[in-house]
Amino acid sequence: MKAVVFDADWAPKRGYEPTDEERKTRFVKTGSQVWKNPRLTISDLPIPELAPNEVLIRVKAAGICGSDQHVYESGEDGYTLYPGPVAAPVVLGHEFSGLVEKVGSAVTDFVVGDMLVSEEYRPCGECYPCRLGHPMMCRNMHADLGFRTNGGMAEYTVASSSQLWKINSFMEAYDGDEDRAFEAGAMVEPASIAFNALFVEGGGFTPGAYVAVFGTGPIGLCAIALSRAAGAAKVIAFEMNVTRAQLAHEFGVDAVHDPADLATRGTSPADVMLELTNGDGVNVIFEAAGAPHITLSDATRALGIDGKILVVGLPTKPAPLDLGHFLVTGSQLIGSGGHLGHGTFGNVIRLLASKRIDLSAAITARFALTNALDAFHRLESREDAKVMLRM
Amino acid sequence: MKAVVFDADWAPKRGYEPTDEERKTRFVKTGSQVWKNPRLTISDLPIPELAPNEVLIRVKAAGICGSDQHVYESGEDGYTLYPGPVAAPVVLGHEFSGLVEKVGSAVTDFVVGDMLVSEEYRPCGECYPCRLGHPMMCRNMHADLGFRTNGGMAEYTVASSSQLWKINSFMEAYDGDEDRAFEAGAMVEPASIAFNALFVEGGGFTPGAYVAVFGTGPIGLCAIALSRAAGAAKVIAFEMNVTRAQLAHEFGVDAVHDPADLATRGTSPADVMLELTNGDGVNVIFEAAGAPHITLSDATRALGIDGKILVVGLPTKPAPLDLGHFLVTGSQLIGSGGHLGHGTFGNVIRLLASKRIDLSAAITARFALTNALDAFHRLESREDAKVMLRM
Amino acid sequence: MKAVVFDADWAPKRGYEPTDEERKTRFVKTGSQVWKNPRLTISDLPIPELAPNEVLIRVKAAGICGSDQHVYESGEDGYTLYPGPVAAPVVLGHEFSGLVEKVGSAVTDFVVGDMLVSEEYRPCGECYPCRLGHPMMCRNMHADLGFRTNGGMAEYTVASSSQLWKINSFMEAYDGDEDRAFEAGAMVEPASIAFNALFVEGGGFTPGAYVAVFGTGPIGLCAIALSRAAGAAKVIAFEMNVTRAQLAHEFGVDAVHDPADLATRGTSPADVMLELTNGDGVNVIFEAAGAPHITLSDATRALGIDGKILVVGLPTKPAPLDLGHFLVTGSQLIGSGGHLGHGTFGNVIRLLASKRIDLSAAITARFALTNALDAFHRLESREDAKVMLRM
Amino acid sequence: MKAVVFDADWAPKRGYEPTDEERKTRFVKTGSQVWKNPRLTISDLPIPELAPNEVLIRVKAAGICGSDQHVYESGEDGYTLYPGPVAAPVVLGHEFSGLVEKVGSAVTDFVVGDMLVSEEYRPCGECYPCRLGHPMMCRNMHADLGFRTNGGMAEYTVASSSQLWKINSFMEAYDGDEDRAFEAGAMVEPASIAFNALFVEGGGFTPGAYVAVFGTGPIGLCAIALSRAAGAAKVIAFEMNVTRAQLAHEFGVDAVHDPADLATRGTSPADVMLELTNGDGVNVIFEAAGAPHITLSDATRALGIDGKILVVGLPTKPAPLDLGHFLVTGSQLIGSGGHLGHGTFGNVIRLLASKRIDLSAAITARFALTNALDAFHRLESREDAKVMLRM
Ligand SMILES: [Zn+2]
Ligand SMILES: [Zn+2]
Ligand SMILES: [Zn+2]
Ligand SMILES: [Zn+2]
Ligand SMILES: [Zn+2]
Ligand SMILES: [Zn+2]
Ligand SMILES: [Zn+2]
Ligand SMILES: [Zn+2]
Repeated sequence: MKAVVFDADWAPKRGYEPTDEERKTRFVKTGSQVWKNPRLTISDLPIPELAPNEVLIRVKAAGICGSDQHVYESGEDGYTLYPGPVAAPVVLGHEFSGLVEKVGSAVTDFVVGDMLVSEEYRPCGECYPCRLGHPMMCRNMHADLGFRTNGGMAEYTVASSSQLWKINSFMEAYDGDEDRAFEAGAMVEPASIAFNALFVEGGGFTPGAYVAVFGTGPIGLCAIALSRAAGAAKVIAFEMNVTRAQLAHEFGVDAVHDPADLATRGTSPADVMLELTNGDGVNVIFEAAGAPHITLSDATRALGIDGKILVVGLPTKPAPLDLGHFLVTGSQLIGSGGHLGHGTFGNVIRLLASKRIDLSAAITARFALTNALDAFHRLESREDAKVMLRM
Repeated sequence: MKAVVFDADWAPKRGYEPTDEERKTRFVKTGSQVWKNPRLTISDLPIPELAPNEVLIRVKAAGICGSDQHVYESGEDGYTLYPGPVAAPVVLGHEFSGLVEKVGSAVTDFVVGDMLVSEEYRPCGECYPCRLGHPMMCRNMHADLGFRTNGGMAEYTVASSSQLWKINSFMEAYDGDEDRAFEAGAMVEPASIAFNALFVEGGGFTPGAYVAVFGTGPIGLCAIALSRAAGAAKVIAFEMNVTRAQLAHEFGVDAVHDPADLATRGTSPADVMLELTNGDGVNVIFEAAGAPHITLSDATRALGIDGKILVVGLPTKPAPLDLGHFLVTGSQLIGSGGHLGHGTFGNVIRLLASKRIDLSAAITARFALTNALDAFHRLESREDAKVMLRM
Repeated sequence: MKAVVFDADWAPKRGYEPTDEERKTRFVKTGSQVWKNPRLTISDLPIPELAPNEVLIRVKAAGICGSDQHVYESGEDGYTLYPGPVAAPVVLGHEFSGLVEKVGSAVTDFVVGDMLVSEEYRPCGECYPCRLGHPMMCRNMHADLGFRTNGGMAEYTVASSSQLWKINSFMEAYDGDEDRAFEAGAMVEPASIAFNALFVEGGGFTPGAYVAVFGTGPIGLCAIALSRAAGAAKVIAFEMNVTRAQLAHEFGVDAVHDPADLATRGTSPADVMLELTNGDGVNVIFEAAGAPHITLSDATRALGIDGKILVVGLPTKPAPLDLGHFLVTGSQLIGSGGHLGHGTFGNVIRLLASKRIDLSAAITARFALTNALDAFHRLESREDAKVMLRM
Repeated sequence: MKAVVFDADWAPKRGYEPTDEERKTRFVKTGSQVWKNPRLTISDLPIPELAPNEVLIRVKAAGICGSDQHVYESGEDGYTLYPGPVAAPVVLGHEFSGLVEKVGSAVTDFVVGDMLVSEEYRPCGECYPCRLGHPMMCRNMHADLGFRTNGGMAEYTVASSSQLWKINSFMEAYDGDEDRAFEAGAMVEPASIAFNALFVEGGGFTPGAYVAVFGTGPIGLCAIALSRAAGAAKVIAFEMNVTRAQLAHEFGVDAVHDPADLATRGTSPADVMLELTNGDGVNVIFEAAGAPHITLSDATRALGIDGKILVVGLPTKPAPLDLGHFLVTGSQLIGSGGHLGHGTFGNVIRLLASKRIDLSAAITARFALTNALDAFHRLESREDAKVMLRM
């Protein structure tokens, strides 16, 4: 089968001493410290074998995540830009949908032909974080498709039935249009990142709330769609890229501004937020620009009483925080990563199946799996929202 | 000025010993124990005087609540049906909107011409419940418009500025249609009853949740609209009245059933809810049928994990509860009354101003203030949702 | 090895049609509908085999639960009194502590000699409730020690390492007294039932709260100890048994009353609670008397603003509920069962290890494993709190 | 009557343009920008007049807060160090207790001789924050005793009955020792600052949690006492001052370390916290050292899953935050100031009356009101915890 394989040279930077485990598994905690000369190929691999509790998935759509793009890109020193955990070689792809091709002998919940999406993680269920109800922080994660074990940018992939969610209901939502149904499926993972931050880690908001979103890439667009669906009375976005800003309107944003433009006009995101909320301030601010060291000062100043700033996406530098405003407003800053453990995929699937949200407009380009390298090239310009590989 | 005045004969039933306070104020805790021969008149009253912190309101629309109807109706023994606290005589009306006609000397937040709605309550701010942040349970409530002090079914009424909320923003939402804007204003109070139960006392739900509503009178219809606006993936309703059931569809309900019909077909609300949720059960059940002794057994059986039953509206009999199901699902039953103390009017106004909800369809009849008695007569048939008096 | 084995005759009552699964496994959903002539024996069984992820436990202490007692006892019709799920034959015991005797080949977190306690449940990790973060409601529970699979009233038992928690820290807490340390371990399970109800399902309370406990059997005593440890400013208990009432004082209760006595004196639990709280009412009421159809009316009447009634233990009859009081106080009734999924064992172990709670006084009798039948006989009088088997 | 009066010269710094309101009231938003040459005197003032809803209080004990000390102290430029809002002249004192000397004509809840404490704030009850249930953020605060209006460092002071809480119950708690009862009363305010942060803004913690406190001045000591009372299984403190560190032990801290010492030994607060929690990390970190720009990096690194950092006390510089750790742990940073609006004084009073907490040991020095200047001098050395003025 064809698959998009990431590989690189093992070259730990001075000062980064890989553990024995890292040496053995070639799965390293900080990719950008170890992997040099990152490269992608469309390779021919054998169709994976099935363990009894596993399902063989015929992949139909797989989105390219910003993380995938960072894995593939390198900096001036030739190392991958991706600062998170990643193995090499590995088949990329953690946002995908497909069909059940075959089920392992112990699988009872899925039958051949079921449409499904897969969570990339397989927690151990036994460590302290797992027992606390926080499997996202599992200390013995058994799988992390597309980073540690082979993922979904391939004709076939394998996952434990415990990672899978059915999306048969999408066929009705999209009037039998299988292409759109599978593409909606491939959006479940990024939407779940936003959902987890807004409604699980972030605790949600009272309908009627004012929400602001910094950065309208795929996660930011999902945050806008979800905030609208959950009753935000006003959603305000900030984005510097014209194409992405334009897209925000299709997701029901009430206003979208370019911070650079605002600066030229002698104003700022904070001023805009305060004005649009009659001085009451914003209830929830979603940082999806990946630049909290820049955005947090505006965000903080625009927070209303009992406001929340939600931060998703690994920041690269410390962000200076004006705690005084947090004190006088009784506000909170909340970190959120991933989506495991609280039925989030299930809720996102329900919202898509009922058309409470429709994320199709976020898909700005489609490529055949065999043209995946072109897709990655195109993404270098950061003009797109979601680029989808189709099989 | 013209006003709808409720009056009745002081005739405490045997066993009900009015307190000195009740005798003095004629505001009794249990109306149905004291007030005989209830009657309504359209009377001429002087325009009320203003205290320094008060606002004179020119009323434009006033809804008739189920409570108002109960105050006016009597049982076989000739006593009012209303079991709650009510004075006589008193001008009815606690769901109204209007214009600022005049402001007291100490009022700074309102100017003549402002469009507004009024909460009926004026809490003391000093008693233990008030200090706890639960002014709805205030022990020295200074006003309860339409029950204890004169309300909004009149050409003019008076309220403290602390009870008032501006709705000038409704003019834009309704494209300058003043009639619709004021009618939307008169719906803020009943919508707030539903909002308070769903999102304040009830703690809200995660988007993607399944919600069921028993009874699609005005409060039930508001609960449907609000649940949709807040991201319920499915809203299921039960209602015996054909007209009201029909209305539910205009508020975005996914299914509405008549319990009697279901019984004929050998099924039940519980079975329907379990079927429509693939056996997962409903996350939130909103009891607005006023008949928990009948509905709770179905509601309980259909509750999913960590489910909630919200009960609004004073029940007349104890309801037998199957606690076993609460235990195995970890579910909750929550009582909710009123709407004061958590900015609920503000959130409902934001939702109406942004058109996230539109409650216009709930208004099934309109009467001039001077024809108010006809409106009350019409409501005896329980065919309407909301009947609106216009001034 | 010696073990306390429950057995009974398969005799489904008319109207109870066992499923194929029940017939095959002899694990039935409603014990009291199937098992006739229940009996206990001290039997000789082979030491259980170990799967790779399992641990062989040398049991040191095992408490007798009210459920165990109900399993063993029969009514006039000769059927077991226990209305929950139970198999026959099965080794009883789900509240136990012991030492690691041997570990399976895949076990990495435990070594021989570790002191430990075991949760009785082994959830599947895959079903919808498990993915929601509610493994207690798992649809494919793989183990339920002492009910479905052999439990801890034996010299040895086996559990998956995912069910086990270390209690080595208890040796320091009890100054090296191994007997007390293991007995403390055997109290972790019942304490976790109370903890889960109070702090997980029930959401906890603000320090300074007033708490009332109906029934001071083992669960009620744990609720008292935990409420004190968590900052309840006053804990009020109701209990009819003199011995148990006496014990409540050792756990720091502020007042304990016999409802029958109160009735004789013309007062009631509700009146006492209102008086002791200066009319503010109780914040949390813990129903551990197993008689909500009797206690709930007092409980409801004494609830303060935003109060909570927590119900644990399967009730045998529906309880009539005065919903009116729930409405005017904005109160909640919450069901709670079990303890899985939120790290509860871990928190209870921390509280015991730090001596924030000490439950030793709840153990009112000790028997050697071989005298277990005497222990069960003694419990028929309901005079004890916790009776402990020692190995 | 004698009173401790703060005065200073009106000398707005360049760049700080006082508003008309500030000029008129001499109550300025940023004291350190306006007040030069701060000074205290023991002055003779007339006993204050009573409005109908007010109470004349005969003060018995008044604590000196860190804020009071900052008001009085000046920097090299001769301006007060206090960066918050303060008027001049004004009688200081916002932590006090006393007796009812006289009640206004409209006061019904208090009688002469009642022992009481007063909140310093009188919110308007009408602005948007007040209606939201956040009176602490009131936009028209009518009183702020000891900063804006005359406070409690005087023989008499006046407050609205809505600000007062009875502490008659303290006499029984302290076996009739009036001195200790009033001193306990004067500790209610600082304890409420800590309570509000831990249990209201911070949302509390599950019993069994691990808590760390940076800074064991009065607020930090209260946080330790409250955390212990609320079931923290371990409380770890960091403090550089030997005397204050010593005091922490009297409040039940499990370990207290001097960060400077730790540095010498090649370790750090973060390492200590991780070690004492077996690597699980701390659940709640309470920043009461007033130096988040220094402490937050250790605090962040030691946070466990779903951890919380609570920040109280106005920081003087921005704090750089490592958001990455917040993301991978799903943690939160929460600001908290004041104590109004959720019955916090009531809960703290219940905890003191029941002796769940006893804060007496925090009082390290006592002075007669007439020697107040000596007290302020003594505090310059920062060796004390709470210094109490007695009348
Ligand atoms: Zn991704
Ligand atoms: Zn794990
Ligand atoms: Zn009404
Ligand atoms: Zn009040
Ligand atoms: Zn048990
Ligand atoms: Zn399961
Ligand atoms: Zn202070
Ligand atoms: Zn205010």
